[in-house]
Amino acid sequence: MWEIAYFSPGFASPLAYQPFLLYLRDTTEVEAAGWLENCMSQRSRRQPNMNLGKGNMAAPSSQSCTALERSIRERVPTLLTDLYQFTMAYAYWRSGRHNEPAVFELFFRDNPFGGGFSLFSGMHDCLLFLRSFRFTDEDVEYLRSVLPPATDPAFFLFLRELDCSGVTLHSVPEGTVVFARVPLMEVSGPLAVVQLLETSLLCLVNYASLVCSNAARFRLAAGSRRKLLEMGLRRAQGPDGGLTASRYTYVGGEERHTHTCKDTHIYIYIYIYTVSFRLSGFDMTSNVQAGFLFGIPVAGTMAHSYVTSFSSLEEVWPQTLVAANGDHDNIDLISLTKGWLGRVCELLGAESGQIHEGELAAFLSYAIAYPHNFLPVIDSYSVTCSGLLNFCAVALSLFELDYSPLGVRLDSGDLCRQSVEVRHVFRLCSEQFSIPAFQSLLIVGTNNISEYSMAELNKKENEIDVVGVGTHLVTCTRQPSLGCVYKLVEVRGSPRMKFSEDPEKSTVPGRKAVYRMLDTEGHPFLDLLCLCEEPAPKACVAVRCHPVVGNKTCQSITPSQVSCLRLEVYTKGQITQPLCSTAETREKVQSSIQTLHPRHKRLQEPDSYIVAVSEKLHHLIAEIRKGSSNNSNFLLAN
Amino acid sequence: MWEIAYFSPGFASPLAYQPFLLYLRDTTEVEAAGWLENCMSQRSRRQPNMNLGKGNMAAPSSQSCTALERSIRERVPTLLTDLYQFTMAYAYWRSGRHNEPAVFELFFRDNPFGGGFSLFSGMHDCLLFLRSFRFTDEDVEYLRSVLPPATDPAFFLFLRELDCSGVTLHSVPEGTVVFARVPLMEVSGPLAVVQLLETSLLCLVNYASLVCSNAARFRLAAGSRRKLLEMGLRRAQGPDGGLTASRYTYVGGEERHTHTCKDTHIYIYIYIYTVSFRLSGFDMTSNVQAGFLFGIPVAGTMAHSYVTSFSSLEEVWPQTLVAANGDHDNIDLISLTKGWLGRVCELLGAESGQIHEGELAAFLSYAIAYPHNFLPVIDSYSVTCSGLLNFCAVALSLFELDYSPLGVRLDSGDLCRQSVEVRHVFRLCSEQFSIPAFQSLLIVGTNNISEYSMAELNKKENEIDVVGVGTHLVTCTRQPSLGCVYKLVEVRGSPRMKFSEDPEKSTVPGRKAVYRMLDTEGHPFLDLLCLCEEPAPKACVAVRCHPVVGNKTCQSITPSQVSCLRLEVYTKGQITQPLCSTAETREKVQSSIQTLHPRHKRLQEPDSYIVAVSEKLHHLIAEIRKGSSNNSNFLLAN
Repeated sequence: MWEIAYFSPGFASPLAYQPFLLYLRDTTEVEAAGWLENCMSQRSRRQPNMNLGKGNMAAPSSQSCTALERSIRERVPTLLTDLYQFTMAYAYWRSGRHNEPAVFELFFRDNPFGGGFSLFSGMHDCLLFLRSFRFTDEDVEYLRSVLPPATDPAFFLFLRELDCSGVTLHSVPEGTVVFARVPLMEVSGPLAVVQLLETSLLCLVNYASLVCSNAARFRLAAGSRRKLLEMGLRRAQGPDGGLTASRYTYVGGEERHTHTCKDTHIYIYIYIYTVSFRLSGFDMTSNVQAGFLFGIPVAGTMAHSYVTSFSSLEEVWPQTLVAANGDHDNIDLISLTKGWLGRVCELLGAESGQIHEGELAAFLSYAIAYPHNFLPVIDSYSVTCSGLLNFCAVALSLFELDYSPLGVRLDSGDLCRQSVEVRHVFRLCSEQFSIPAFQSLLIVGTNNISEYSMAELNKKENEIDVVGVGTHLVTCTRQPSLGCVYKLVEVRGSPRMKFSEDPEKSTVPGRKAVYRMLDTEGHPFLDLLCLCEEPAPKACVAVRCHPVVGNKTCQSITPSQVSCLRLEVYTKGQITQPLCSTAETREKVQSSIQTLHPRHKRLQEPDSYIVAVSEKLHHLIAEIRKGSSNNSNFLLAN
Repeated sequence: MWEIAYFSPGFASPLAYQPFLLYLRDTTEVEAAGWLENCMSQRSRRQPNMNLGKGNMAAPSSQSCTALERSIRERVPTLLTDLYQFTMAYAYWRSGRHNEPAVFELFFRDNPFGGGFSLFSGMHDCLLFLRSFRFTDEDVEYLRSVLPPATDPAFFLFLRELDCSGVTLHSVPEGTVVFARVPLMEVSGPLAVVQLLETSLLCLVNYASLVCSNAARFRLAAGSRRKLLEMGLRRAQGPDGGLTASRYTYVGGEERHTHTCKDTHIYIYIYIYTVSFRLSGFDMTSNVQAGFLFGIPVAGTMAHSYVTSFSSLEEVWPQTLVAANGDHDNIDLISLTKGWLGRVCELLGAESGQIHEGELAAFLSYAIAYPHNFLPVIDSYSVTCSGLLNFCAVALSLFELDYSPLGVRLDSGDLCRQSVEVRHVFRLCSEQFSIPAFQSLLIVGTNNISEYSMAELNKKENEIDVVGVGTHLVTCTRQPSLGCVYKLVEVRGSPRMKFSEDPEKSTVPGRKAVYRMLDTEGHPFLDLLCLCEEPAPKACVAVRCHPVVGNKTCQSITPSQVSCLRLEVYTKGQITQPLCSTAETREKVQSSIQTLHPRHKRLQEPDSYIVAVSEKLHHLIAEIRKGSSNNSNFLLAN
């Protein structure tokens, strides 16, 4: 007796999972174990050790780099930043201030998509970026060519020697539910260096958090019943936009539930790393590179071009298939299927006049190549007049040979209506030909799905089991940017604040600790920003605070539990917390979203979550504002 | 007498250009020539030879790779594609069809942003991708782990040997104005290979074309007077989203005009490559890596954090500056500026009570580091009560020492109103202190600028010279995806067509030639899709055609000129057209947009451009549709 290893390539979803199950059905335990071991060793070669903590140097040799770290270095070269970071760094260096201890905070000002929360992502990439942060000779030569000619040449020597060994990063853990205005990262270190990091850190966090939050909304809209396939690479904003989307849409989401599979003869389950059975976020991606780099399950069968590339049954080769049940005779699949097609037309009272020979040839050819993975797209010509009939005929042939076809994909038109018609035909075939599994074949829908149309699926009658989402998910059409900012809050131990002409662009000064307050049911209800030196609030002890937006009057709250929201994750050139795998981060997202009260998770008009500052911080802000309005004594001094 | 080399780093815009000019003012011609030569040799080291045509192998050795080609390989690994490309490739291979000659077309279905045109971009990256297309052993091992275990092992050997030496690409030139439904690329070659290319080509063209078109709209909205700075990296969809945006927003746009600079003493102009004086698209980027890879002018001075990092004049060091006029005495800039600040307050009747000492310290420190490049952000506290007063004082000191400050940046609040106030103060200072240049200092505006707010700048009174655009430009908030598709149109010389449940998702079958028809004024007015074998339409000869959307009835048109829209750009493993530099592509965009009639360029409700098929192609479509409704004779055969 075995159970399926969900983490294995192609194993996390029924789409890829069912055929393997059937493949294993007639395999000995020893054979199955060998194959699984092979899968796992390949996986562990790709991701040798995700714990890159203590003992690693600030800039490790290329030999010790994982594919992931290489990928970050390639995708985020150190010059991928704004020019003004260098002009400012030079001005700091020129005035001898470059090593002054400074503290920046990273946060966003509004929860995205009009929602009540966001998911924090991209931090792991930031850590890898910090660790490999170095300027090459070529970088420095380029900078020399773009900075003004009067720039002191010694500055370029300074840049050449720079690394992040003096930087410390405190951060909310990857995959945590977070809210607008909460400082998610605190970056402290030498003024010039932490300034130089701004653009790269923002770029890494902004889109990762946005698309992860978008995936969570799609999952909330879809509910837990349906499987979700991310397939947006071709429509993404650049190659890396696609890669980042595939990664973080897999991470995003909630709705844990235990998956049980139907018709399981041998059920293989090996629990490795911390991956579990909870299905959440997106379940799989079409993006092969994302599978390669992050171990995300990949899925996909065929495009319309495959179907339209066939025009006649003569193109089917080989034309025979050996039955799965161990009978080694070659069966002529074309003749067999023609017979089934006649019976299907008879059963459904369908005209055979519009059935496409090329489409049938494509289905047969694919079924012969992948008899365990048959899931064709059936709308290349007409679902009801051709695609569905051809599918049923081929599927019946496969059932006859003891294979289990997977299902169909619908890629145009009214998906709900068509899925109901398709299921109806599946049920008729199931009854007529006494094949119980036929009625529960998968129906995959892919046609410009938005969060809105996803939510509609729960309101309209439909039979769609798996939804593929591309453009609206990966480009976040409702709001394509999160708007994270990176603001200076302290220099040499002294708090700093920007006022700005827009009041909402003012910053909250000072080095802070961030606490999350939980109510008696374990739901977080308020995030409190305190000054670092303040004692931590305690459970069951009232604390006074001032919300940062809306009603800003002082209130007293009493938490049942208090947790510190941020951890030190990088210091002295070393990553100080284990880097989670993509699957572990997905777990983290699930548990974090699960504790959130449903009123904050509503997709439309959610209740606002309160973010507040402590009394002491409130007074500091008032003091700085007051001080700033009487600031010109310096004019009198000489 | 010299003229400025616009292509040189930091030379393409007044922002970076003015200080260099002034720097050169007191430089001998020999010194200036030496410095320029240095700039150019650095540039040519980075982009050794953009003409990578004949004589280059399909997969050149890494030694001969340019930084650009390396960048493409790193950003677009061959596995960055959808899984179904591999499952289809296997099915083709399994049935022996993988080498059948096939033709795919790439196009989009609707012009983006509700506009009348788009700009075609990303083709050069496609060429580099084709040339380096190879699977590594590691890639193939990964594929082996995700494809079903029954996959024939010989297929993986086939993949390992695959390259694009059998692929031919015909394409519209990079930077051409294009329209919905016109096949922009024709990819022909072995069925399995051209199928495998789908996702990567789409990913490279989709966003590049979208963001280039968006930049063109921003430029059309801005008019030609203002300079445009792209600064969206931190808000882009992933690091590569930012890089791609910086590149193609520079490319996109029109409005050629000759730039003349004011107060020019020495005017250096060296004409190298094909870069000229025409200012168009975006003029510069904040993204340093984009400057490094693509030679785009980079710009930027300081963030609010620089300002808020200073709290007192004691932090200014050194406190002295040598005058630009050759007088070698060190001048105490703090004392000098305090004096000017008093006079400015007196002139403007301003209270000194809210002037921030830290802000003045920041401005002084920056001016001492970069006396030729002084352009601070002046809204960290209050523009009118602090920032503007501090700026004027420092600028007056610089003028006194014979430097020319550049101007100011406004980053919050009502930019139009503030710019008018700032210009008013500049004029007062100019008159009061007899400094003509003071009134024409630059005003840079950056505050969440959209296409709409850009257009508003032309309606409301304002004095903004340079506009910085981030989020709305790079993420294309109005429509974050172009929706390009890649469709099979021919296999083994036989046309293929998809019908689909959505009529607009039907494809146009057959291998085509695409002609652009020009009217008597040289404006394109119709793109005609013909079958390859048809004779080309001739100038001044009537031709009958059928529009592909809208009124589809036959019409007769007589072009004054006819041009063939696509070229062969890649065949037998070689790039067959010179790869243009980013600046050359920018030129191409300009000339292409300029020929377009204004009625198609209107940002709101433009006239539709007609795309039509020839009579012969129209008949082919009708035949295929007819044939498809009587397709089931195969059921009778055995």
